[in-house]
Parts: sequence; C-alpha cells; structure tokens
Amino acid sequence: MENLPHEHAPAKGKTPVKYTHVAAVHPRQRTSCLSHDSEHSPSFLGFRNLMVIVLVVMNLRLVVENFMKYGVLICIGCHDYRRIDLILSTVLYALVPCHLFVAYIIELGAAQHAKGVLGRLKRSDYDPNHDLFEKSRSFQATWYTIAWAHGINATFCLLVTTYVVYHHIHHPMIGSICQVHAIIVWLKNCSYAFTNRDLRHAYLNPSSATTIPEIYSQCPYPRNVTISNLAYFWWAPTLVYQPVYPRSPSIRWLFVAKRLAECFALSMFIWLASAQYAAPVLRNSLDKIKTLDVASIIERLMKLSTISLIIWLAGFFAVFQSVLNALAELMRFGDREFYTDWWNSPSVGTYWRTWNKPVYHFMRRHIYSPLVGRGFSSGFASTMVFVFSGLLHELLVGIPTHNILGVAFVGMMVQLPMIYFTAPLEKMQGINGRVVGNCIFWISFCLVGQPLAALMYFFAWQAKYGSVSRLEKG
Amino acid sequence: MENLPHEHAPAKGKTPVKYTHVAAVHPRQRTSCLSHDSEHSPSFLGFRNLMVIVLVVMNLRLVVENFMKYGVLICIGCHDYRRIDLILSTVLYALVPCHLFVAYIIELGAAQHAKGVLGRLKRSDYDPNHDLFEKSRSFQATWYTIAWAHGINATFCLLVTTYVVYHHIHHPMIGSICQVHAIIVWLKNCSYAFTNRDLRHAYLNPSSATTIPEIYSQCPYPRNVTISNLAYFWWAPTLVYQPVYPRSPSIRWLFVAKRLAECFALSMFIWLASAQYAAPVLRNSLDKIKTLDVASIIERLMKLSTISLIIWLAGFFAVFQSVLNALAELMRFGDREFYTDWWNSPSVGTYWRTWNKPVYHFMRRHIYSPLVGRGFSSGFASTMVFVFSGLLHELLVGIPTHNILGVAFVGMMVQLPMIYFTAPLEKMQGINGRVVGNCIFWISFCLVGQPLAALMYFFAWQAKYGSVSRLEKG
Repeated sequence: MENLPHEHAPAKGKTPVKYTHVAAVHPRQRTSCLSHDSEHSPSFLGFRNLMVIVLVVMNLRLVVENFMKYGVLICIGCHDYRRIDLILSTVLYALVPCHLFVAYIIELGAAQHAKGVLGRLKRSDYDPNHDLFEKSRSFQATWYTIAWAHGINATFCLLVTTYVVYHHIHHPMIGSICQVHAIIVWLKNCSYAFTNRDLRHAYLNPSSATTIPEIYSQCPYPRNVTISNLAYFWWAPTLVYQPVYPRSPSIRWLFVAKRLAECFALSMFIWLASAQYAAPVLRNSLDKIKTLDVASIIERLMKLSTISLIIWLAGFFAVFQSVLNALAELMRFGDREFYTDWWNSPSVGTYWRTWNKPVYHFMRRHIYSPLVGRGFSSGFASTMVFVFSGLLHELLVGIPTHNILGVAFVGMMVQLPMIYFTAPLEKMQGINGRVVGNCIFWISFCLVGQPLAALMYFFAWQAKYGSVSRLEKG
Repeated sequence: MENLPHEHAPAKGKTPVKYTHVAAVHPRQRTSCLSHDSEHSPSFLGFRNLMVIVLVVMNLRLVVENFMKYGVLICIGCHDYRRIDLILSTVLYALVPCHLFVAYIIELGAAQHAKGVLGRLKRSDYDPNHDLFEKSRSFQATWYTIAWAHGINATFCLLVTTYVVYHHIHHPMIGSICQVHAIIVWLKNCSYAFTNRDLRHAYLNPSSATTIPEIYSQCPYPRNVTISNLAYFWWAPTLVYQPVYPRSPSIRWLFVAKRLAECFALSMFIWLASAQYAAPVLRNSLDKIKTLDVASIIERLMKLSTISLIIWLAGFFAVFQSVLNALAELMRFGDREFYTDWWNSPSVGTYWRTWNKPVYHFMRRHIYSPLVGRGFSSGFASTMVFVFSGLLHELLVGIPTHNILGVAFVGMMVQLPMIYFTAPLEKMQGINGRVVGNCIFWISFCLVGQPLAALMYFFAWQAKYGSVSRLEKG
C-alpha cells in the first residue's frame, strides 16, 4: 500500500482533504479483464511462473515422500557386474574398430583398381563408346565384389558383437555400450562404402562430376582413401562419411572442459534419479503388470512418465549437447548441428527429423534419398527408414536386456501412422494446429512411448533374472 | 519423413540421381542451438506445452491414486447441518439489512437538520463570519450525534451476528455465509455514513463544493438520501457508496445466465474437489501436526498447496468474475472492474491492490486516504489498513470455525514486511526483478499462506468437534 495510485483522490488543496470519503472510485463504465467484452486480453505471464512453481513443488513433494518411504537407495558398491562382462566388453571395444581398417583396405584396393582402369583407357585408343561401356562394365563388376567384401566385413562385426552381448554379457548397461559402439561403427562402415562407391563412379565418369559437392574438391577421389582420412571419420561426431568436413579453426580447451563437466554432472544426476526414483516405481509396477490391472498400470505409467522424461531430457543434453560438442571441439569438427529445436515439433515427423541429426542424416542420405532416386514413393522410402530404424532400436534395447520382445521395433512402426496423422496439423493456419501437434508429440513421446517401453523391458528382465542390484537379492 | 527438406540433396537431373550417397550433409560450420555461441536462441514454446501436459498428468495421476485409496467420497446426504443452524441463519439474513434501513432513517434526520440550518441562515441577516461559525458548530455537533447513531447501529448488527454464529451456528459453512453477509452490510453502512457526512459538509459550505466529483451532480445532496438510492447501494456489487454510479444501458439476460451457469459449474467443481481431494489430505495431516513432525508437515503442506490453489482459483473466478458480473448486470452497475491482473503481480503489495477491488476501494477511500489526509505517513496508513483487514479476516474465519486462533490476523500482519521487501523488485530494471517478485508472491500465497491457514483452522476444528461429515462419525 506504499504507493497507492491517487488518480481518483481529490487534488490536494486547502479544503478538499476533508472530502476523501466522497471520491468517485467508480467514475465510468469498465469491464472485468477476464470478460469476453474486455478490450484488452490481460497477460497470463504470472500463471506461467505459477506452473513452474507448482511443478517444482509437486516434484519436491515426491522427493520427500520417496525419502520417507525408501530412505537413501543409492549405493556405490551394490552394482553386480561380472568380471567376464568387463573383459569381453574391453575385447569387443578394441576389435570393433579393426573392421573399419578392413574397410579401408577394401577401398584402397577398389581405388587402385579404378586408377588402373582409367590409366589403361588413357593408354589405349580413344573410343568414347567403348570407353563408356568398358568403364561401366568394370565399375559394376568391381562394385559387386567390393559390396560383398564390405557387407561381410561390416555385418560380421555387428553379428559377433550381438552374439557376444546377448549370450555372454549379463549386465545390461555394459551390453548396451558394446552394442551402441558396434552399431555406430557398422553405420560408419556402410556410409564409407556407399560414399566411396559414388565418388569412384564420378571419378570414372568425369563428365557428370559437376554433381560432386564443391567442398570435396579440396580432397578429390582417390586422394581421400587414406588411413588418416578414415581415422578422422572414425572419431568425428557424425555417421555420414564426407572426404572433407567443415573444420573449426582451433581447439578451445575451456569449451571442452565445460562440456565434459556438464556431462559428468548430468551423468551423476541421471544415476541418482534412476536409483532413487525410477527404480522403486519400476519395481512397484511389476505386480500391477502381472495382474494386468489396467487402472493401476495407467497410474504407474503416469508416475513413471515424469521421472523418465527428466532422465531422458538429462540424457539427451548430456549426449547431444555435452559429449558430441566436446568431441567435435576436440576433432575441430565444424558442423555442430546435432539437433535442432525438436521440443517445439508441431508434428511427430518433425521430431524424428530434428532430435537426432547424425542418425537422420544417415537415414536420409543412404536410405531415403537413394530409394526416392530409384523411383520409389517417399511414403515407401520413409517406411523403409523406420523399418531399418526399428531393427536398430530392437538390436540396441532387446540384445543387452536379453529379451527380444519386439516392443522397440513395434514402437518405431507405430511412428509411421502418427507421422501421417500429425502432418496436416503442422500446415494448419494459425498457432492452434501447431500447439495441438506439439501436445500430441509430447504425450505420445513422454507418456506412452518412453515409460511403457522401459516398463516392458524392465518387466521382462526381472521375469528372467530378478534384480541387477545386490541389495534386492539380499 | 513425408516431406523431407531436400536442400542438401543434389538437384534432380539426368545423372545426379546416382550420387545421392555423396551429398554434403555437413556443408559448413554450424553451432548447436543450445550452445552459448549460437546466434539465435531457440524458442522454448514446446516446453511450455510440456509443462501444461506434465501438470495435467501429475494431477490426473493423483486423481487415480486418490480413487484407488479412498473410492468415491462424495455423498450428498452426508452433510450434518442442524435445523437450528438453518433457522438462525435465515433470521440473521432477514434482520441484517434492516440496519441499513436504520442508517437511512439516521441520514434522513441529518439531511433534514442540515436543510433546516441552511434555511435558518438564509432567513437571518447575512453575516459571513457568524454564518461560517454557526454552520461549522452545527455540523460538528450533529456529526457526533450521527456518528454515534451509525456506530451503534452498524456495530450492533455485526456483534449480534458474530455472537449468534460463534455460539449457536455449528456448521462452519452456514456460519461463514452469515458472517460474510453481516460484514458486507457493516462495511456498506460505514461507507454510507462517511460519504453522506462529507456530502453534507459540502452542502453546508458550497464554496468548497468544487471538489465533489462531477458525476454526483446528477443527484446532489440531500436528494440522494432516498430509500431507492440506498436500496440500489445495498444490492450494488461495491462496498463504496456513491450517490450516482456509472450505469450500463440495459440488462443482457443471456450474459446473466452464462455467469450464473459458470458459478454453478464452479461451485460443483469446488465441492467435488474439496470432498474428494482436499478433505483426505487435511485428515491425513492431523497426526503429523499432533506429533510436530516437520518433514511430514512440509510434505503435507506441499500436497495440500496444489489442491487448495485450484479450489482458490475456482472460487476466485466464481465470486469475482461470475457472481459479481451477474449481479452487476442485473443492477446495470457499469463499473465491472472487480479485479485486475493480480496473477502477474510483481510484488505482494500489487497483489493486495488488485485481487479484490471492492475491499481495496473501501480501504483506500475510508481508511488510507483519510489518514494520509490528516497528515499520517502512508506507512502508518497502510499498517492501519492491514490491522483492520486482519481483524475482518479473523472475524470471517475464526468465528464460523469457533476457534479464534489469530492465524488469519497474523497472516495479514505478515503481509506488511512482505510488501515492504518485495516493493523494490517491482521497480527493478529488466524483467527479472518482476519475475522474482511474482514467484515470491505465488510461493507465499499458495504454498505458505492458503494451505497453512486452512490446515490450522481445520486442525483446531477437528480437535474441538471431530468431523462435520456423518461418514466420519460412523
């Protein structure tokens, strides 16, 4: 009340002070600011602040409730990993990149062969028709050999890892790391083979070489087939091979340190949140799944959704912002667009195009565009991308948890109709369609997708093995 | 994937289709959009949508949990009100406005007296000095009489109601309605007396009459002292008497119907929310208060804060938007500014100035401004306003719950330092001070203020009487 507006109070003069009781506080017609006939709609910024506060308070309350129910569940010595898991994962970690070296040898041979073909043709009499025919025949014949060699090399690597993880590495976390590593190297291998195939074709047919991107002219085929060029690709934060990448001028070590500190802090946070909050909810949900009590499962899913969302967001930031940026800085890799603002996605399709750019780039360049280029419809090409992605997801989740349930695969397949049905929302006039699309995305993503899948694989794991934690066994 | 951006894909021509695998997906240096060195900060609108969804989901989960724990708690026949409560409240409801009629009689006498004084002076020889002295003496003498008459009349009405509610009306809801009614009539009575005092003084001293607001000239003193004028004030949605109010041209019956429908729907909602959600939390908190277990009390307060906030917001809308607008429409009362955007308050002071305009107008016109006009500091005047308001709050809450704990009074007193300390935030440069102020307001209001007070009066009630509901007794 310190600074009351005196607009209606009588002006201060000699006598008027006495007449404060007559001030016209209702001087004219006015509307309530929430009425429809109000001229100006009021700001609701305060309610945004209130939402943040209520969210913080509700979650703090759950923290207190959780503490009162369970006490401290975090225990450093409780993780039960076997010695054989560590040994096998170390061996796999060392062996998997060797397949990249094999890929290099294959490409070296192919480049030598192409150089030979071009040299032979130059030495022989010039006959454009024979020349073209010869080159094309030679290219196709070599490509089949090379494709088989690459295919066997890359797939062997993936199959061995999958076999070892599924049958011999018990701990799901260690298994996941091995599996992610193998899949990344496999994808890089594929990209390396496909890209060099097209570069070689362009090398043998210089007339169409104008379609080779400008940036590659710094290192034309076959000069890119070197061990250092491949080693750079091996460590670069991308799944798509380019002979030349945009590079940043220098390594900012402070930047690297900050990103690594972020990553460490977020990993700690994720570990604490998982052990203290996610694990009890998951465990409490098991009985409900067994009895198929739908109301209880829904209640558990809703409780799980918040914590799984928080962990997912922390994990996203840790990997796509902190780790990939640190790695890019160390490699002086210029293109840091590992994601764009997927959280604003007005449709499910936009989310899949924006949240994981490295995988998206791979899928578009090596699956979607080639299929469309061969005359398939974009719908078919998208379906193929999601089938492939579904298989990879199942490999990534089903193998380390030793339960190939198909939930991850089906989850990816379900994206296709959702993409189809939310696409029109994105193009709707006005903001409402986009807000509805964004809400559909969030609900499908954080309410149904993540926690349901987590719950099912956890349930299957517990059904097969019981708990990973020694505490639970005791 | 239906509509992939093809920006990096080679242009479609004769041959380039073959070279999709070489497309430069990393064409230039780019930053991650969440990095500090990013040129454009991305929009976070999607996270706002996410917050709304998470809030809805968390509360829906509590609804399901509550249902699984307690089943349906709503019971129409379970409210245990006594027959005597209804009879007494009806009698009070009929008697209280009679005091307004008494006030009218008092003012009628005062107006007659003033007319007599003015007439006598006109008839006698004109002597400015004697005239002024005579009028002033006469005015003061009459004012003391009138003030005493009004004081006894108004306060008698309030005291009788308070006595009856405290001692004879058991049900807190019925008691509250009676008490609110009596306080409103008492405040209207005070405003009527004070305003007519100043109008009469201006009438006797026409030289200073220029400070009377323009709008009153349509009905100058003493023509305003009629039964119909007072009856209008009795029903008008304001606590501040004006001889003339701005009026709307006609009654829009559809508007009235919509507001009443809103009020009905919100009342149902509040009843359901109280019975099903607030009551169990309140009951579960009792043991925790008894044992003074601080962590548990805080957990309970946080659980209570969301539901009490929802009920409060629904109640605010029902009363200040629906009921007061419906009443204003029926009375063709033009000034509908019963509140402004208090939810954006950047300080506690702004909240108290904006959330309840009828009471704020009363306090400012009849307490704050007169005190400042008499030379008191604005700090002292504000303190007086909050002391008075604290007494009214205690009357309103302590009397119907039969427990004069002083919590409501102390709660109002605590506002004074909070207003003092948050006032500078409002004037800070930039948006941050205002956001901090707004958050302090929300936390103090919905986390500490409302639920703590509710908990304490509920605890005191249960300690004295046990439950109101028959279910609990059985």
